[in-house]
Amino acid sequence: MKKFINQPEAFVDEMLKGLLEAHSDQLSSAAGDTHCIVRTDISKAGKVGLATGGGSGHLPLFLGYVGKGMLDGCSVGGVFQSPSSDRMLEVTKAIDTGKGVLYIYGNYSGDVMNFDMAAEMAGMENIRVESYVAGEDVASAPKGKEAKRRGVAGIFYVYKCAGAKAEEGADLDEVKRLAEKAGSAVRTMGVAISPVVVPEVGKPSFIIGDDEMEIGMGIHGEPGIRRGKLLPADEVVGEMLDKLLPDLPYLSGDTVSVLVNGLGATPKEELYVAYRKAAEILKGKGISVFKAYVGEFATSLEMAGFSISVFKLDDELKSLLAAPARTPFFEQFQLKV
Amino acid sequence: MKKFINQPEAFVDEMLKGLLEAHSDQLSSAAGDTHCIVRTDISKAGKVGLATGGGSGHLPLFLGYVGKGMLDGCSVGGVFQSPSSDRMLEVTKAIDTGKGVLYIYGNYSGDVMNFDMAAEMAGMENIRVESYVAGEDVASAPKGKEAKRRGVAGIFYVYKCAGAKAEEGADLDEVKRLAEKAGSAVRTMGVAISPVVVPEVGKPSFIIGDDEMEIGMGIHGEPGIRRGKLLPADEVVGEMLDKLLPDLPYLSGDTVSVLVNGLGATPKEELYVAYRKAAEILKGKGISVFKAYVGEFATSLEMAGFSISVFKLDDELKSLLAAPARTPFFEQFQLKV
Repeated sequence: MKKFINQPEAFVDEMLKGLLEAHSDQLSSAAGDTHCIVRTDISKAGKVGLATGGGSGHLPLFLGYVGKGMLDGCSVGGVFQSPSSDRMLEVTKAIDTGKGVLYIYGNYSGDVMNFDMAAEMAGMENIRVESYVAGEDVASAPKGKEAKRRGVAGIFYVYKCAGAKAEEGADLDEVKRLAEKAGSAVRTMGVAISPVVVPEVGKPSFIIGDDEMEIGMGIHGEPGIRRGKLLPADEVVGEMLDKLLPDLPYLSGDTVSVLVNGLGATPKEELYVAYRKAAEILKGKGISVFKAYVGEFATSLEMAGFSISVFKLDDELKSLLAAPARTPFFEQFQLKV
Repeated sequence: MKKFINQPEAFVDEMLKGLLEAHSDQLSSAAGDTHCIVRTDISKAGKVGLATGGGSGHLPLFLGYVGKGMLDGCSVGGVFQSPSSDRMLEVTKAIDTGKGVLYIYGNYSGDVMNFDMAAEMAGMENIRVESYVAGEDVASAPKGKEAKRRGVAGIFYVYKCAGAKAEEGADLDEVKRLAEKAGSAVRTMGVAISPVVVPEVGKPSFIIGDDEMEIGMGIHGEPGIRRGKLLPADEVVGEMLDKLLPDLPYLSGDTVSVLVNGLGATPKEELYVAYRKAAEILKGKGISVFKAYVGEFATSLEMAGFSISVFKLDDELKSLLAAPARTPFFEQFQLKV
């Protein structure tokens, strides 16, 4: 294990301390707990609160999207571990302004259990909570079983669109409708070529050959759909989109946003080589790209690999995607629509 | 070599093609050459032009800072290779609006030679060119020999401040003064724990033991000042700042900006662990941090490691740093001063 850390068991605490110190103008902790992150500028005048949460090791996920135009709070777990329902509740209480709170989080059993419990506890404190569970990894369950799919990088689009809608002053039902609409318009497919070492475990999460890749691997190393020899980038992208595009399906005449997301160790240069091929394939199918995002949006510590998310836009989603946002990990000026 | 590429010799061309496609709203190529990158929104009404250039493999360096509030153009070389003077000239011609052009680039012999030649050729075409050569890596030459130092991540601050000044409408002499002033206020120190593989070379740039680090290593794998066992993160940061802070020197009462920059494969979580310790050391010395940047600002493909840059601010530099900027790799809303 070759990492810039101190004691492995202090890793998450020290990371959060550094993060809150670096971004003290934008983020603070709730209830005196660094694992409960909230915006410093929550208006008490009131808008619907948006909360997320999840394990550490995925920056910018999850807390990196807390900020203006996106989320209001995030509960943080250990590396690849769900945060506790108590922490979720503290975040909920800190961000509720009387208009209710929407939970948006990825489909993992620990998170589902804890967020459900937190929602129940919040209800007992008279805070109305609704939930949207994001799951768009086409490799994790077949078409027809969408509810079993894991949530990965595509959750960025759900945060962005629901966050922009909440910032406009929409009510909880309307913000939830947008989260559902955005979530159902996105699909993601990933590929990995190297494992990740969780500090407290100290050894690789899986073994993969020096010349191998695994298509469809999850962001915690969950099994993918095919392991084989690493192919040239263009073939990898082709195989990913062959599986991804028919799933929604994305069709000629559609307008989409594309997110090519690095999992950690893969250089940005390689992500652009992949984007180039993805753009070529989409153009060949008559699908237009409105906005491309290329970079690290949902990682798995030092795993090498990337994912491609495709997000189908209509006028409503396009205008929400184009709205400005300002978080410690994602700043976007208003896009021209 | 485990990379998402096609033919190694096509790597840079394909990366640039993807990048221009992804960011066609902000970037375009000059003279029909994808290695000559310019802003799409250069005002012909005129401001001083800012150009940079350098080898590929360092994204966001160099071309990633071409955009509003920062640079106007960038010439791009092969991986770790200087761009040609012809390409530098094409960029110069494309961005000059009659007010002259400032070159800001890192101190590497190939770049110095080619930028000098490009400046001479531009002079023959009646374009006034001035240059600022950035070099702030304290590990690369001792105090007193600052002119021999390599330019690394700290060049970000030079781009930011000179770019903001040019955007205000300042003339060439004034923009150059700001580049010099910013460059002389920044110092950087790096550490690496794994090598990089240049696609066309196909093997690691150097060998380092499974338990070793090299303090002061350059972003192309240039030798550092000490190789030894990898220490806990806090000790590594302590050793880096022990060397860096006395160099300017940074003293009690100073206000600085800090940049903790990942070299490629190091997770953002580890960068925040390092930032936490850096902030603690600075606070202990009575140095205040105005703004922290943590992330990937100058990389070396998939090298694992990071650098710390410290930038001393006065009111003028602070207000330029705080100005908004919008490039494909760096967006910043106006900061509160």
